[in-house]
Amino acid sequence: MSADGGLTYRDAGVDLDAAADVKARIRDMVESTRTEAVRAGYGSFGGRFHAGADAELVASADGVGTKLKVAFRAGRHDTVGRDLVNHCVNDILTEGAVPLVFMDYFACGRLNRGITLDVVRGVAEACRENGCALLGGETAEMPDFYPAGEYDLAGFVVGRLEWPAVARREVRAGDVLLGLASSGLHTNGFSFVRKLLFDRLELDVEDRFPGTDATIGDVLLRPHRSYLRALQGPCGDGLIRALAHVTGGGIPGNLNRVLPSDLDAVVDLESWTPAPEFRFLQQESSAPATEMYRTFNMGVGMVAVVRPEDEASVVSRLERSGCPVWRCGEVTSGTGAVRLQGLDRAG
Amino acid sequence: MSADGGLTYRDAGVDLDAAADVKARIRDMVESTRTEAVRAGYGSFGGRFHAGADAELVASADGVGTKLKVAFRAGRHDTVGRDLVNHCVNDILTEGAVPLVFMDYFACGRLNRGITLDVVRGVAEACRENGCALLGGETAEMPDFYPAGEYDLAGFVVGRLEWPAVARREVRAGDVLLGLASSGLHTNGFSFVRKLLFDRLELDVEDRFPGTDATIGDVLLRPHRSYLRALQGPCGDGLIRALAHVTGGGIPGNLNRVLPSDLDAVVDLESWTPAPEFRFLQQESSAPATEMYRTFNMGVGMVAVVRPEDEASVVSRLERSGCPVWRCGEVTSGTGAVRLQGLDRAG
Repeated sequence: MSADGGLTYRDAGVDLDAAADVKARIRDMVESTRTEAVRAGYGSFGGRFHAGADAELVASADGVGTKLKVAFRAGRHDTVGRDLVNHCVNDILTEGAVPLVFMDYFACGRLNRGITLDVVRGVAEACRENGCALLGGETAEMPDFYPAGEYDLAGFVVGRLEWPAVARREVRAGDVLLGLASSGLHTNGFSFVRKLLFDRLELDVEDRFPGTDATIGDVLLRPHRSYLRALQGPCGDGLIRALAHVTGGGIPGNLNRVLPSDLDAVVDLESWTPAPEFRFLQQESSAPATEMYRTFNMGVGMVAVVRPEDEASVVSRLERSGCPVWRCGEVTSGTGAVRLQGLDRAG
Repeated sequence: MSADGGLTYRDAGVDLDAAADVKARIRDMVESTRTEAVRAGYGSFGGRFHAGADAELVASADGVGTKLKVAFRAGRHDTVGRDLVNHCVNDILTEGAVPLVFMDYFACGRLNRGITLDVVRGVAEACRENGCALLGGETAEMPDFYPAGEYDLAGFVVGRLEWPAVARREVRAGDVLLGLASSGLHTNGFSFVRKLLFDRLELDVEDRFPGTDATIGDVLLRPHRSYLRALQGPCGDGLIRALAHVTGGGIPGNLNRVLPSDLDAVVDLESWTPAPEFRFLQQESSAPATEMYRTFNMGVGMVAVVRPEDEASVVSRLERSGCPVWRCGEVTSGTGAVRLQGLDRAG
């Protein structure tokens, strides 16, 4: 209430002064990501950018999903921004695009300065790592929407089509499937994981993740990996025929999106061993293997389709860039299906 | 639980089949908004579009805010999509840009088919009205995040800089301020309104809004107006020097953003009478007039700055387009401040 008994906006749960302070700090983070694509940014009603002459553009929107609940539980908010940016960057990478600008939507019940700045710092860091400008965003204080310390986070990327060959997806029978290692669960399967670990097994974020040396919080919050730096060389040299970003739906639900209707992708599940966290989740949930491979990336964050003659070169370049990679299958004649070979033994 | 007792993704609160059905319907709505800017859209990992040769682009992100809570209360979900799109379109209009593509982020606890489709239908309709393609978006099912029937909604727009003169904001002393009527509260001040009407006065959405013939739900949910159609002619003819979209912060918190540091904007509050809903909110809350004008648009959704010699032409064109408009003030020498004249009598 204001001094004269009137209702003020602050009484209603929105603190405009605190918001102004946070916005000033966010402005600095935004400035730290500035690239030559940016023409005018923070403080305007919209951010202005340039994509180069006659550019084709690719845009994508995403959220972090219920992985956020793990961040809330762990009280750790500097990783989810990286999840968000890297997820978006990988999505447009599969369309042959390099990211130009990113915008975030951060919504909370009541603005918590530390949490907000941690989240946006993660976003800004990942933007810098991907050479992408954080052009602006929306920080929304929505009383009664989110409990104290909780929030939702979504993002939006615009990139420039740089490698049309990747976008064309000229996949042929005989092409090789390369699996690029994920860093963990990335941002999918968290409703399943939370129900199993926290509800059914009554574990918590500070407990050790069975089969690993790390805590559950550390394992679950490991950020979604960006494949941009690893793949930009091979994409630029025309060695990549198609890319599938393994998110919701797993390998079968994403690799199918780059297959023509007369070819199958045959994935050899014995070509790799999923990381301990996936094995533990499968064992403790008794989920059928099919379900596991539809829910989780199971260790493969991106699948690259290459010609057999380019395999060795692409593999060695990815390895040199620090991204573990292996031949995980091949393309055969078929019906546009993804066939998981060895699913019975993986179950 | 699946037949063999294992945990499935559906047990965890995510129904992938229902989601697939909703996504198919959304695809149709997306297709209905297609424009020549779109190159490849729905079903890809990212939507592809073209902005024309050597275009400068403007992007903006926004949410609907706690106006959503009124939609939940009224069980009416076909208006908030229009709020979201029109808000974003107005934001980049002030930067001299016409919208090209829009993406939405819709997050709910459990996918409700009817609600989701109503929301996206509103988004798609507003996209069509603004000549903007709905390029894609993210529909996120996040168990435990949102109560049944509730959701959050955010959006991102990318436009092409079409009227650089609007973006340059060459405002001079002697320029005229034109107030373009809002359709109501638009999307600001809803935490205040909900607290006052629903908590303090114990009214509800089906009650008549005092001083009007409409229900509280109808008055509060009236969609945010888009000023694109009304302003595109005058912008194209170089008659608009600057535009301020009146959102959070009201007239003083937005008109200041287009003022150079040596000029003031003097707004004559006696040049219009705020609609009955604003007068009722002020009277019942006993909020000081300053607070009212910082929280609400008070009847002015957009302020256009024009040269005195262009005033008559702009006014008549806006009126012919159906947008009520009036001279609401002028630009004088000063210090970059917005001065509300007649605030004492408005209190």
